[in-house]
Amino acid sequence: MVGNCQSVPMIGVATGAAIAGAWSDRHRQPPTFPALVCVLGFTETALIPGISAAGQTPSDRQITALADGEFLLRGIQPQYHYALPPLTAGASPALISRALIEALALPLYVFDAGLPLPRLPEMIDLGGTPARCLTTGQAMTPQMVAHLWEQGWSWGAKLSSQYPWLIIAECVVGGTTTALALCESLGIPARDCVGSSHRQSNHTQKWSLVQKGLAHLPPQADPFTCVAAIGDPMQVVVAAMALRASQTCGVLLAGGSQMIAVYAFGRAIAQWRQLPWRPEQIVVGTTRWLIEDQTAQIHRLAERVQCPLIYTQLDFSLSRHPALRAYEQGFVKEGVGAGGCAIAGHLLAGWRNSEMVDIVDRLADRWAKGM
Amino acid sequence: MVGNCQSVPMIGVATGAAIAGAWSDRHRQPPTFPALVCVLGFTETALIPGISAAGQTPSDRQITALADGEFLLRGIQPQYHYALPPLTAGASPALISRALIEALALPLYVFDAGLPLPRLPEMIDLGGTPARCLTTGQAMTPQMVAHLWEQGWSWGAKLSSQYPWLIIAECVVGGTTTALALCESLGIPARDCVGSSHRQSNHTQKWSLVQKGLAHLPPQADPFTCVAAIGDPMQVVVAAMALRASQTCGVLLAGGSQMIAVYAFGRAIAQWRQLPWRPEQIVVGTTRWLIEDQTAQIHRLAERVQCPLIYTQLDFSLSRHPALRAYEQGFVKEGVGAGGCAIAGHLLAGWRNSEMVDIVDRLADRWAKGM
Repeated sequence: MVGNCQSVPMIGVATGAAIAGAWSDRHRQPPTFPALVCVLGFTETALIPGISAAGQTPSDRQITALADGEFLLRGIQPQYHYALPPLTAGASPALISRALIEALALPLYVFDAGLPLPRLPEMIDLGGTPARCLTTGQAMTPQMVAHLWEQGWSWGAKLSSQYPWLIIAECVVGGTTTALALCESLGIPARDCVGSSHRQSNHTQKWSLVQKGLAHLPPQADPFTCVAAIGDPMQVVVAAMALRASQTCGVLLAGGSQMIAVYAFGRAIAQWRQLPWRPEQIVVGTTRWLIEDQTAQIHRLAERVQCPLIYTQLDFSLSRHPALRAYEQGFVKEGVGAGGCAIAGHLLAGWRNSEMVDIVDRLADRWAKGM
Repeated sequence: MVGNCQSVPMIGVATGAAIAGAWSDRHRQPPTFPALVCVLGFTETALIPGISAAGQTPSDRQITALADGEFLLRGIQPQYHYALPPLTAGASPALISRALIEALALPLYVFDAGLPLPRLPEMIDLGGTPARCLTTGQAMTPQMVAHLWEQGWSWGAKLSSQYPWLIIAECVVGGTTTALALCESLGIPARDCVGSSHRQSNHTQKWSLVQKGLAHLPPQADPFTCVAAIGDPMQVVVAAMALRASQTCGVLLAGGSQMIAVYAFGRAIAQWRQLPWRPEQIVVGTTRWLIEDQTAQIHRLAERVQCPLIYTQLDFSLSRHPALRAYEQGFVKEGVGAGGCAIAGHLLAGWRNSEMVDIVDRLADRWAKGM
């Protein structure tokens, strides 16, 4: 009884300690199972008519983030507190994320960074409030930005000590407009680049709103001043959480333009505050549908930001649900970490397209039957 | 759209190929999930009165390996083709192995290397027959040994191409006596060392039987001649399978004295046939109960063989089942890969004692209720 295996104390070593220890280390399952974080936020920019297809009316769009969060947390239920709003075409991307949360048994943390309606009890309160419309140039107070940064930072520390990596997703309706504004405010040309929940990206509308917001900013404003003027609460929380977590663990920012903007913002803060920036730890992960969206240029935006961008090849052509096949016609495309969850399915379980489609189809079957 | 992630083709890389590729590799679940192999065999040595406690009567002991295999494969059932024979004290170690097969969802292959009664349809036939009693000095024909070696070798090739490592377990009643004989025939002093299903190891009985068998062997017989004279079919199959599999993957020989004897035999064959021997790939894994058995000296045997020996610290003191707590009084101790399956639980899921006891207790609850 020489002693115990150092890395696995439940295994004793009777003889051959060197070989036995190395053998045990090689055959140990590394703790590579991540947690999924979803940060919900709101900007009154979402109330502008036509700004987003994530909810048909302004009042629907106040519910979208809460409904997405509820569906991620609770899955298919006989009734909902906040039901997913009807979309013009296509199923909510929350179906994709939830199917993979169930299939991979991902630990899930849903945060309320500032919502216009009461959160569910299982959502974690960060003490934030919705941002005002970015056209005001006063989206959030500096105090609120500082508070949300602290909250994101401390949760980043907590989660990175418990998980080997994090998938960080978001839901902010109108968030691609605040993403465009944040990139531009940081000096990154993003006009006509950001994605959209519309089938055809509404660049002109977004650009004119962003111009109004940016007009309030002094030249060479620091990143906190920028986000306070034209940003949203999710951007602050996710940037802080990712920056802190990436000191010790990997981070997948699950989303498109919004996460590329968060990446640029986090790096700008790191430079400004002289915090360590670990580029090898953070990637943005999204869907092929967004990458292939001919009406946006997400790929170009990532190149300008110099941000690693990966995507799932998930293809719903052979799904049995028309609402999922609609993704192949350019509807919906991404949301609440759908692309990041699919990437986790490829990484953790090695699932290929047919397995992924089957996993989402089976949840959609139950969704169609309401059970 | 630079291309796809090399190791995970379902993930595309839009920008930042170097960072994105390295990030994906680091966050990928390595395919470290092993398969469990259980090789069933029989030696007529098991029919000698008092030789084994794994079945109270000789006729019970003809059933033990089949019943263990059936329980591994089918778990708790309303009725069995071969029911686990009643033991003097303590629960069958098949309960431990099956609980972990279920909890870890281990792929399972059960082989019939030579059984005295018809196998179940899901057991894989290797075309073997039971060995005669080792006292005959003609336990198996040279043709049968060569055939079983080929079978083990080709299954080792097949399984090692499909799994990153293998847990290889066995059930041969009377097998510690053939293990003692095999070690001695290979020049390894093993008297008073091997374990036993008895609470107090019956060394004197075993030693006199082994002496009778060894008397038939010419001096310096080659390893195949030795095993043919005094061995059992499992030894041949497992040695070949482990030797072949270890060329490319890790092997955990799950058992005590019998697996140490197989290890010594495999190495002897490798030397004799000039086959590559990869000592870093193979360990023997067993239970603390066997290591701590004061009436055997398994630790000393492993040292003599120079075989890495690891063991699970699993402790049933706090089990709610008296038949499991009996392990702490020295009953049963090991069998059908129980120790190796527990080691897999530590390695793959990180389970510690309370979780392991709970997993086995819950199967034992259902066993007690017959459901």
